[in-house]
Amino acid sequence: MELSLEQIAQAVGGVVAAGDKDKKFSGAAPFESASNDEISFAADSRFIKKLDETRAGALIIQTSLEVSFPCIIKVDNPQAAFARVLALFYPQKRPFEGISEKAHIGEDFSCGENPGFGPFVFIGNNVKAGKRVCIHPNCVIEDNVVIGDDVILYPNVTLIEGCIIGNRVIIQGGSVIGSDGFGFAPDKEEYVKIPHTGIVEIEDDVEIGANNTIDRATFGKTLIKKGVKTDNLVHVAHNVTVGENSVLVAQVGIAGSVTIGKHAILAGQAGITGHIEIGDNVTVGPQAGVSKSITANQVVSGSPDMPHRLWLRVQRILPRLPELKKKLAALEKRLDRMEEK
Amino acid sequence: MELSLEQIAQAVGGVVAAGDKDKKFSGAAPFESASNDEISFAADSRFIKKLDETRAGALIIQTSLEVSFPCIIKVDNPQAAFARVLALFYPQKRPFEGISEKAHIGEDFSCGENPGFGPFVFIGNNVKAGKRVCIHPNCVIEDNVVIGDDVILYPNVTLIEGCIIGNRVIIQGGSVIGSDGFGFAPDKEEYVKIPHTGIVEIEDDVEIGANNTIDRATFGKTLIKKGVKTDNLVHVAHNVTVGENSVLVAQVGIAGSVTIGKHAILAGQAGITGHIEIGDNVTVGPQAGVSKSITANQVVSGSPDMPHRLWLRVQRILPRLPELKKKLAALEKRLDRMEEK
Amino acid sequence: MELSLEQIAQAVGGVVAAGDKDKKFSGAAPFESASNDEISFAADSRFIKKLDETRAGALIIQTSLEVSFPCIIKVDNPQAAFARVLALFYPQKRPFEGISEKAHIGEDFSCGENPGFGPFVFIGNNVKAGKRVCIHPNCVIEDNVVIGDDVILYPNVTLIEGCIIGNRVIIQGGSVIGSDGFGFAPDKEEYVKIPHTGIVEIEDDVEIGANNTIDRATFGKTLIKKGVKTDNLVHVAHNVTVGENSVLVAQVGIAGSVTIGKHAILAGQAGITGHIEIGDNVTVGPQAGVSKSITANQVVSGSPDMPHRLWLRVQRILPRLPELKKKLAALEKRLDRMEEK
Repeated sequence: MELSLEQIAQAVGGVVAAGDKDKKFSGAAPFESASNDEISFAADSRFIKKLDETRAGALIIQTSLEVSFPCIIKVDNPQAAFARVLALFYPQKRPFEGISEKAHIGEDFSCGENPGFGPFVFIGNNVKAGKRVCIHPNCVIEDNVVIGDDVILYPNVTLIEGCIIGNRVIIQGGSVIGSDGFGFAPDKEEYVKIPHTGIVEIEDDVEIGANNTIDRATFGKTLIKKGVKTDNLVHVAHNVTVGENSVLVAQVGIAGSVTIGKHAILAGQAGITGHIEIGDNVTVGPQAGVSKSITANQVVSGSPDMPHRLWLRVQRILPRLPELKKKLAALEKRLDRMEEK
Repeated sequence: MELSLEQIAQAVGGVVAAGDKDKKFSGAAPFESASNDEISFAADSRFIKKLDETRAGALIIQTSLEVSFPCIIKVDNPQAAFARVLALFYPQKRPFEGISEKAHIGEDFSCGENPGFGPFVFIGNNVKAGKRVCIHPNCVIEDNVVIGDDVILYPNVTLIEGCIIGNRVIIQGGSVIGSDGFGFAPDKEEYVKIPHTGIVEIEDDVEIGANNTIDRATFGKTLIKKGVKTDNLVHVAHNVTVGENSVLVAQVGIAGSVTIGKHAILAGQAGITGHIEIGDNVTVGPQAGVSKSITANQVVSGSPDMPHRLWLRVQRILPRLPELKKKLAALEKRLDRMEEK
Repeated sequence: MELSLEQIAQAVGGVVAAGDKDKKFSGAAPFESASNDEISFAADSRFIKKLDETRAGALIIQTSLEVSFPCIIKVDNPQAAFARVLALFYPQKRPFEGISEKAHIGEDFSCGENPGFGPFVFIGNNVKAGKRVCIHPNCVIEDNVVIGDDVILYPNVTLIEGCIIGNRVIIQGGSVIGSDGFGFAPDKEEYVKIPHTGIVEIEDDVEIGANNTIDRATFGKTLIKKGVKTDNLVHVAHNVTVGENSVLVAQVGIAGSVTIGKHAILAGQAGITGHIEIGDNVTVGPQAGVSKSITANQVVSGSPDMPHRLWLRVQRILPRLPELKKKLAALEKRLDRMEEK
C-alpha cells in the first residue's frame, strides 16, 4: 500500500508543512529505523535535536515546533497521529471471512454483515453479534451473549452466559469473561457457594489483554466502561466497576465491589482491596497495595499505599534503615555517657 | 419457579417465624433491591436497624434475633442459608445434554448417567467420568484422567494426563491442571528438564477459579484437598498440598513442595516460598511474602511476613520514616551542642 | 522398560564404580522412595550420611565422593544425570500420531516427518512446522507461524500470526504467544491503539510455563533466547529480550522494552519496570520491584530493589520499627530533661 503525504495528513487531521504533497510513502516506522519511503514521528524536542540521525522520508511533528526537514506533517499530538498512520499502513488483519463450517452455531443466532468466525468457535443459543465481528478459532461464546460491531476476539477467549460486549472491543487470547465471582458463605468449617446471577458488561472501545479474568457479578453486573484498556493477566473480581478510559497494567488485581473512576491508571502488579473507591484520575504505583478509598486526582504508591511523593522519600530511607538504627544506638550511648558525668 | 415460605424454610433447615407458610416467592435478591415477591436476608444487626429500607417479601434472619417483619425464616447462619436459597431459585445451568457429536471421545471411555459435553471437547483414551458431569466447549481432558460425579468444567479448561478430579468439583474457564512442574537441574550454564512423573489430585467439593495453573508433581502428587476454594490466576507449584477448606485468593502463588494446613486463608497476591509449612487456620495477608514456616492459628502480613498486629504498627510507621529520620538528625544536633558546652 | 547399569551409565556420561554392569533396572525414583529395581541419586553429602535409609538398587553420586554402596554410577553432576535417567525411563509421551482428521490445516502448510497433532488444532495459512512436532488438542497456530523440530505445544496454546518457535521448545497449556503489546497513545481523555507490527521469537530449548502471556513487539521482535525457562503465569511485554538460559519464576512481570542478560534468575512475583537493563547473571529476589537498570552479577531484593545483603538487614529491622520509634521518643525525653537542668 502506498499513501501520499497529503493523504496521510488528511487521515490524521494534520497539515503538510513541508515537502511534496504527492510524494508517496509505503510504510511507517520508528525514528531510528525508518527508511526514505517511510514516515516517522518526533515525539518531543529530544528528537528534534537529532534530525540528522533519521533516514525517514517524512516526519510528523508537533504544530508549535519550527523544524527544517524535507517532508513534514504538523499535528497537535504526534504520537497519536503516528498510531493512526500505523493503523492505515498495517490495518488489523481479518484472517477469517464468513462463518467457518467447522464452527458450532447455536439456535436463534443473529449476526450483522461480514462476520469472520474461525474453525472450532462455539456459539451458544440466542447469541447476538453485530457487524464485522471477527472471532478467532477456539473461542467459546455461551448462551445469550450480546456482542457489538467490529469486535475482535482472539483465540481461546471465553465469554460466559449472558455477558454484553460493546462496539469495537478487542479481547486478546485466553481471557475469561464472566467466570463466577469468588463468593462463598462460611458454614462452620466449610464454604457454601454463592450463586452468581449477574453478568459482565464491557462497553465500547475497551481492549482486554491476554489471559485476563473478569468475574460476573453476584447480582447486577461487573462493569468495564468505555475506553478502558487492560494489559495481560489482570484480575477483576465480581461487582467491580472500572470507569471510562482507565488503564489496568499487567497483573493488577482488583477485589470485589471496588469502584474505579474515570481515567485512572493502576500500574503493574498493584492490588486493590475489596469494597473501596478509587477516584477519577487517580494513579496507583506498581506493586502498590491499596487498602482504603482514594479521592480523585491523587497519586499513591507503596504497600500500604501512601502519597507518591511521600513514598519517594520513604523508599529512599528504607535502604538506610541499618544506618539509622546504628545512629540511634550511637546517640543512646553518647547520652548515657553524658548522664554519667 | 415459585417456592412457598415453608418450602424455602425446609430447604435451608430453618423455621418460619412469621408470615403465611404458603406465601409464594419467585426469587431471592439483596436486601437493597429485593422486591415483594422475593426473599432476602439480614446478614447482621446493622440490617435489622434498617428494616424499613427493604421491600423484600421475606427475610432470613439469625435465630436469636427478635424482629418484627411480615415474613421471617430463622436459621443459625443467614448468609449460608441465603446462598442455598439462591441455588434453589437459580440452579447451576446445564447448557449441554448428552455428549455432543462434535466432541472427540477417545478409546475406553466410561461415563456415568446424564453427561453434558459440549462441542470441541477432547476426551483422551481411558478416561473415566462419573454421573452428571458437565464439560463446556473446548475443554481438553487427556489420557487416563478420572473425574467424579457432578463435576463442572467451564470452557477451555485443560486436564493433563492422569489427573484425578473428585466429586462436585467446579473448575472455571481457562485453568490448566497438571502442567509440568518447574523443575530443572542446572548443568553448567544450561538447565536439564526434570521429567514430572506425578499427577494432580483434586478432592471433593473443590472450586478452582479461572486461569489457574496447578502443576503436576515430580513424583507422587500435588494435592488439593476437600473443600478448597481458589480464586482467579492462582499458581500452585509441583508437590504442594493444600489442606481441607483452605482458601487461596486471586493471584496467590505457592512455590514447590509447600504444605498448607486446613482452613487457611491466603489473601490476594500473597506469595509462599518453597518447601515450607503453613499450619491449620493460618491467615496470610494480601501481598504478603512468606519465607518461613508458620505454625497453626497465626495471622501474618507483610513482606517479609510478620505477625499481623506487628505489621499493623509497622505499616503505620513506614509513612513516618522521613519524619523519624529528621527527628534523629535533630537529636544529634542537640547532643552536639550540649557536648560543645 | 529395563536398562542395565552400564546402559544407564553410558546414557549420562558416567562410570559404573560399583556393582554388576549387567544388572537391570526398571525405573528411577527419589532417594526416600526408590525400590530395589530402581536407581536414585545422592544430591550431596547429606544423602551420603544416610545411605542406610534408601532401598534404591543403585545410586548416582558425585565423582569425587568415596562411598560404599552395592551399585554406583559416578558422574560430575548427579542431579542433572538423574534428570536424564528419568527422561530415559519416562520419555515424554506422544499421545498423537499423525495429523488428526479433526484438526484444521490451512493452505500452504509444510511439516517435517512424524507430526502428532490432536483434534481441534487450528493451523492457519502458510505455517511451517519441523520434524516430530507434537501439538495437543485445541491449540491455535495462526498464519505464517514457523515452528522448529521436536516442539511440544500443550493444550489450548495460542501462537498469533508470524511468531517463530525454535527447536525443542515446550509450551505448557493455555499460554498466549504474540498477543498485541500494551501500547496506546494518549489523546485527550482517550487512548489510540498503537498497532503492533512485530512478532515474538522463541529460540531453541526454551520452556514456557502454563498461562504465560508474551506480547509481540511494536516493531521488530520480542525475543526469548536459547534455553530460557519460564514458570506459570509469567508476563513478558512487547519488545523485551530475555537472554540465554535465564529463568523467570512464577508470576514474574516484565514491562516493555526491558533487556535481560544471560543466566539471570527472576524469582516469583518480581516485577521489572519498562525500558531498563538487567545484566548477565543477575538474581532478583521474590516480589522484588526493580525500577532501575542492574549491572551484571548483582543480587537484588526488595521493593524498591536494593543489594540483597542490604535487604537482609533491612528486613530484619522492619519488624523492629515500632521499637526504634519508641527508643527515639525516649531519647528525646531524656535530652529534654537534661536541657532543663
